[in-house]
Amino acid sequence: MIGTDVFKITKTKNSKLASLDMDRLPFGRYFTDHMLEVDYENGAWGEVSIKPYQPISFDPSLAAIHYGQAIFEGVKAYKNKAGEVFIFRPEDNFKRFNISAERMEMPTVPEEIFMEGMKQLVKVDEAWIPEKHDYSLYIRPFMFATDEAIGVRPSLTYKFMIILSPTGPYYSEPMRIYAEEKYVRAVPGGVGFAKNAGNYGSSLYPSAEAKRKGYDQVLWMDAFEHKYVQECGTMNVFFIIGNTAITPSLNEGTILAGVTRDSVIELLKELGLNVEERRLSMDEIVEAYKKGTLREVFGTGTAATISPIKELAYKDFVMKFDVDKWTVAPDVKKRMSDIKEGNVEDSFGWLVKV
Amino acid sequence: MIGTDVFKITKTKNSKLASLDMDRLPFGRYFTDHMLEVDYENGAWGEVSIKPYQPISFDPSLAAIHYGQAIFEGVKAYKNKAGEVFIFRPEDNFKRFNISAERMEMPTVPEEIFMEGMKQLVKVDEAWIPEKHDYSLYIRPFMFATDEAIGVRPSLTYKFMIILSPTGPYYSEPMRIYAEEKYVRAVPGGVGFAKNAGNYGSSLYPSAEAKRKGYDQVLWMDAFEHKYVQECGTMNVFFIIGNTAITPSLNEGTILAGVTRDSVIELLKELGLNVEERRLSMDEIVEAYKKGTLREVFGTGTAATISPIKELAYKDFVMKFDVDKWTVAPDVKKRMSDIKEGNVEDSFGWLVKV
Repeated sequence: MIGTDVFKITKTKNSKLASLDMDRLPFGRYFTDHMLEVDYENGAWGEVSIKPYQPISFDPSLAAIHYGQAIFEGVKAYKNKAGEVFIFRPEDNFKRFNISAERMEMPTVPEEIFMEGMKQLVKVDEAWIPEKHDYSLYIRPFMFATDEAIGVRPSLTYKFMIILSPTGPYYSEPMRIYAEEKYVRAVPGGVGFAKNAGNYGSSLYPSAEAKRKGYDQVLWMDAFEHKYVQECGTMNVFFIIGNTAITPSLNEGTILAGVTRDSVIELLKELGLNVEERRLSMDEIVEAYKKGTLREVFGTGTAATISPIKELAYKDFVMKFDVDKWTVAPDVKKRMSDIKEGNVEDSFGWLVKV
Repeated sequence: MIGTDVFKITKTKNSKLASLDMDRLPFGRYFTDHMLEVDYENGAWGEVSIKPYQPISFDPSLAAIHYGQAIFEGVKAYKNKAGEVFIFRPEDNFKRFNISAERMEMPTVPEEIFMEGMKQLVKVDEAWIPEKHDYSLYIRPFMFATDEAIGVRPSLTYKFMIILSPTGPYYSEPMRIYAEEKYVRAVPGGVGFAKNAGNYGSSLYPSAEAKRKGYDQVLWMDAFEHKYVQECGTMNVFFIIGNTAITPSLNEGTILAGVTRDSVIELLKELGLNVEERRLSMDEIVEAYKKGTLREVFGTGTAATISPIKELAYKDFVMKFDVDKWTVAPDVKKRMSDIKEGNVEDSFGWLVKV
């Protein structure tokens, strides 16, 4: 294990913290005083430095810009009432990061660099962690190809970084979405399970089309029949039908294995619901809606946390929900907040103390 | 039309040209003295500057790195024996660039900036154009998202650049490839027809797997049945069966509409072959091989030009070809070189004089 002595820490002399309005924090707009940076070359990771947040210089031929060899993660840190700092399930993000790295033919990042680096960085900037309810310190680890040449091949050099952003809620209102039947996010054999940059860029046009039609986002369907539910691009999705919670399975490799998705599955079981991870068709959803058994629909994600979907359209059929009467999503959200904020015991062992 | 007076040209005082070995030019490794740069913000493109090739500075939250909103093109310039400079079909790359831009929810680039900018830049660095046979000046226009914030949404700001690389052949040897049945490059409704960064990053692991198995590259198959030919990732692909040339059609939106592909179709017709753009299954290819009617298989691309495929594997069946006995691919390649290098009349109107 790399000791903290291997981290070269240089602190800023000019903190930006005083200029930050802690009560108005749009998602991902502001960054803390420091960042973590480490380069990979000649088959090895170099010295890990934590230093003042600053621009990076790159050659216009930077491989990541031309060929999209770039991955990231999203993690959150919280401060409890006693002032203790915790990160939510970072080990799961670490594992997923390296799964993404492998699929993108990038080097894996050692656990010591990812985990200990994250803790060290959060510690340095712990004054930036908002204490307001529903607020947190969003942690963004990412890695990108840094070769300066323009042939299509795996880069020989990479940069791994972590930056931090104090942030409020991602989606503030219940969402209106529709089942996307024309555009496709992922297919078995593709990269849908990886958190690579290209998955997000490719989703922007369909998402913008949704906005132009007056919706907030699309619900992606399978690539073959355009009727099996996948995910929302920034969120996994859950359907509560009767006493059963159904969410698409990870088996086909087309959706992201969300850490919040996994946490919500545990909390739903705790609430006494049956949880099924399986294929789920829009026909089944519409049928349940018509029978009155489709109780709730919501998205889950690190950034999005738990976001109610108040309207879901499929072809010409629109399903509407009275979000105020829901019980499951609010219960899960409250339980998760209580755990994250340290109001109740962390019986799942999800919190890692900094 | 933007006149040349709108281009702000600043020339370098320290040319790197003297240090370049014009007889040893690996693809995309060296760049010329100047680059073109223009920024998009507040819904409009700003001043176009041609200036000394230099690093760019960016914030670690650069949208393109996190979400892959990035596209590019590949174009080539040649110098004929009289010393005149020509660019090969840049209008077609311009059109495709903006098709990619639209799919990635990016602003289109005005023709004046793309075309006139490219010509101006090539003119400034025309001393860098290699005159050796099979060598050229590779032109790389590209655009990427420059917002400095990490929410998943279309960037509000972008940078369009052109850089130039004097270069030799991309693939020097006939290739060995196999039909990829596990990994998938593109699916209808996806971004396979666009030249976005993510398409290339996603292909690196399957390509590296091919190399680990002793092959040069994969031949992508369709996403549904894994048996209809698509493309090679950096090349479109042609099969000569009897007196017919067959290449996958563009109808499904899963392959790149190659400019070289289109040129080769014209040259094949000129040679008297029937050309069919249609679905082509590996079964049909294997059957033609067994009957002795599959004469040639080759890839086409701006970087790759025309690259013979000497070995093609499908499941356990390996098709081998005696490339030295081929006539079609060499004829097409020679005809195209003659046009590009000005040895024969450009009857297709493909060359644009600088």
